Amino acid sequence: MAGPELAAIIANLPATVPFVGPEVIERKTGIKFRARLGANESPFGPSPKVIAAIAGAASDVWTYGDSENYELKEALARHLGTPMETITIGEGIDGLLGLTCRLYLEPGDRIVTSLGAYPTFNYHVAAQGAECVTVPYDKNDRESLSGLLDSVLGVKPKIVYLANPDNPMGTWWDASEITRFVEAVPEDTLIILDEAYGETAPAGTLPPITLMRPNLLRYRTFSKAYGLAGMRVGYAIGAPRTIAGFDRIRNHFGVTKLSQIAATAALADQDYLARTIAAIAAGRDEIISRTKTLGLKPIPSATNFVAIDCGADDTYATMLLNGMQAHGIFIRKPAAPGLNRCIRMSVGTPKDIALACDVLEDIIKTENR
Amino acid sequence: MAGPELAAIIANLPATVPFVGPEVIERKTGIKFRARLGANESPFGPSPKVIAAIAGAASDVWTYGDSENYELKEALARHLGTPMETITIGEGIDGLLGLTCRLYLEPGDRIVTSLGAYPTFNYHVAAQGAECVTVPYDKNDRESLSGLLDSVLGVKPKIVYLANPDNPMGTWWDASEITRFVEAVPEDTLIILDEAYGETAPAGTLPPITLMRPNLLRYRTFSKAYGLAGMRVGYAIGAPRTIAGFDRIRNHFGVTKLSQIAATAALADQDYLARTIAAIAAGRDEIISRTKTLGLKPIPSATNFVAIDCGADDTYATMLLNGMQAHGIFIRKPAAPGLNRCIRMSVGTPKDIALACDVLEDIIKTENR
Repeated sequence: MAGPELAAIIANLPATVPFVGPEVIERKTGIKFRARLGANESPFGPSPKVIAAIAGAASDVWTYGDSENYELKEALARHLGTPMETITIGEGIDGLLGLTCRLYLEPGDRIVTSLGAYPTFNYHVAAQGAECVTVPYDKNDRESLSGLLDSVLGVKPKIVYLANPDNPMGTWWDASEITRFVEAVPEDTLIILDEAYGETAPAGTLPPITLMRPNLLRYRTFSKAYGLAGMRVGYAIGAPRTIAGFDRIRNHFGVTKLSQIAATAALADQDYLARTIAAIAAGRDEIISRTKTLGLKPIPSATNFVAIDCGADDTYATMLLNGMQAHGIFIRKPAAPGLNRCIRMSVGTPKDIALACDVLEDIIKTENR
Repeated sequence: MAGPELAAIIANLPATVPFVGPEVIERKTGIKFRARLGANESPFGPSPKVIAAIAGAASDVWTYGDSENYELKEALARHLGTPMETITIGEGIDGLLGLTCRLYLEPGDRIVTSLGAYPTFNYHVAAQGAECVTVPYDKNDRESLSGLLDSVLGVKPKIVYLANPDNPMGTWWDASEITRFVEAVPEDTLIILDEAYGETAPAGTLPPITLMRPNLLRYRTFSKAYGLAGMRVGYAIGAPRTIAGFDRIRNHFGVTKLSQIAATAALADQDYLARTIAAIAAGRDEIISRTKTLGLKPIPSATNFVAIDCGADDTYATMLLNGMQAHGIFIRKPAAPGLNRCIRMSVGTPKDIALACDVLEDIIKTENR
């Protein structure tokens, strides 16, 4: 006998992984990456004060972390200017997206998202037996607010997902446009507004924190600009009643003690964050400038990465990606039609960017010879 | 309008928290705990080599952890003498129990567990809309293998949960009895064998690692004897096909980078683990000896805590618990009928144990005056 039966939804799931990690690629190919520019991490790292806080607390890890993440939540509430009960903290945005799907989705439910938007969200949707309805990006490589809204009004989905700024394209909408979208979505559809890249966006991109509706959850993270991807700390902001739902199913002791300490210390060092954001902006400009010189069309970005239109099709962009990988440069590319002409390069250190662009230049020159 | 509707299962959940953390109690009562003996943590902490490894890696946390937890899994496989594909790693046993419930349970399904066994498992069961059928402990305060088996054969549940050694009573069965139980459970019932306290149990308590069946998953953790509760690393061992199920729904990047590093370093320092286990055994003996002197009946324990029969009813044990809490001693007590005459004290440092037993003595003497 084969053992106990999996739940029907689970048995029907494909054994997919939303992102194949760089270490997995290294083990498969046997090639060690020389530059790690594929996961939108911050090579500028966390603040030295965060590093000191982690090292200083290393001997305290025999206790469980605070199940309410109180100190971090209090610090976030003060920093954002919103009551503590409008915040929940979880194991990265990925963890919170999983919980959100479990809170709201039942088999047969539908969600609306952009074609090529965050695959980890779709992974969690599938695990609930729900279905994704996708909307193409607009001709400026933005998530289409009008397209998403039309789909929401037609499909009447349980959830609509929108990232601002967007990943994988790096594009963004002004706060006023986002607010208009939020106000137009019927209240029985939950809006997941993923603001993972909010810190690196121009002023005026994030709607005010006071934009609260029962059907709106905004997701932010310490993984990107704060340089703490490996610590897994994300948070969601929303109306207290909506936020309270997470307490019904979350893993109450799930955020590690050091993660809480690190995130709290990171939040306290806004000077360091400001310097990181400046370094990211400079790196973004450098990637744009170098790739333009190569005849490619980098897309303006509000994030810590740049999507680069390689001027041809999926096959060409995939060839460039594979070539870079073979030379030890870890980048990614979108797979979805409409976006798959692009590769995506995270902002690395100046040295990493130079190395990656040199390799890209060699591949293109060899190709055109 | 109230916003989007929660999924029916979730809407019906009580807003319970399986364990109220000590920090939460401190904030509620305004009393700071002087001794932390309620969460079965290890005050002996992790190995100094683990502390050094965490501190040494603190600046590397800008990268996500390895999504396959490869190095830790490889080290565990070597240490346990079992292939890598028989192991999955997750955010503590709590995280893995949640995933297990999602993999197997559908609304209306039933599980069998002991009345008073691990409440966090029941919490995850409820989140799937499944129901718990409970079996009383036996007269020796052990989980009743015959009772559980009878219930399994009658109820035909999707899952049966068994901890060996047990929490909250600290009792245990020999490996041969556990093996007999495992072999008697029909293959369409998944056996969750929780071995969180396996390291502190007498030789001959854990069945050999080669006990593999499609319906058996064994759960272990770095939170207890290894002193890493705050890092959230647990693992499950089982047949490769059963283990592979976790990849369908787990949060692939969910185990933090430092958690992987810390657990790998902890596993490598078996000398330190041996010293910790000796210190735990000594502390257990001290708790038993002190509480016997007070006229209480400590129950022999294979874990890092001692359940103490206070010789009366729930009310009396609760009075002792509350008294200790008011004097800054964090302990817990079982709530279930049959077990609720007991309080449960984790093994602390000799100083903590002395303090806790002094306070307990004062309360009992005052009570008897």
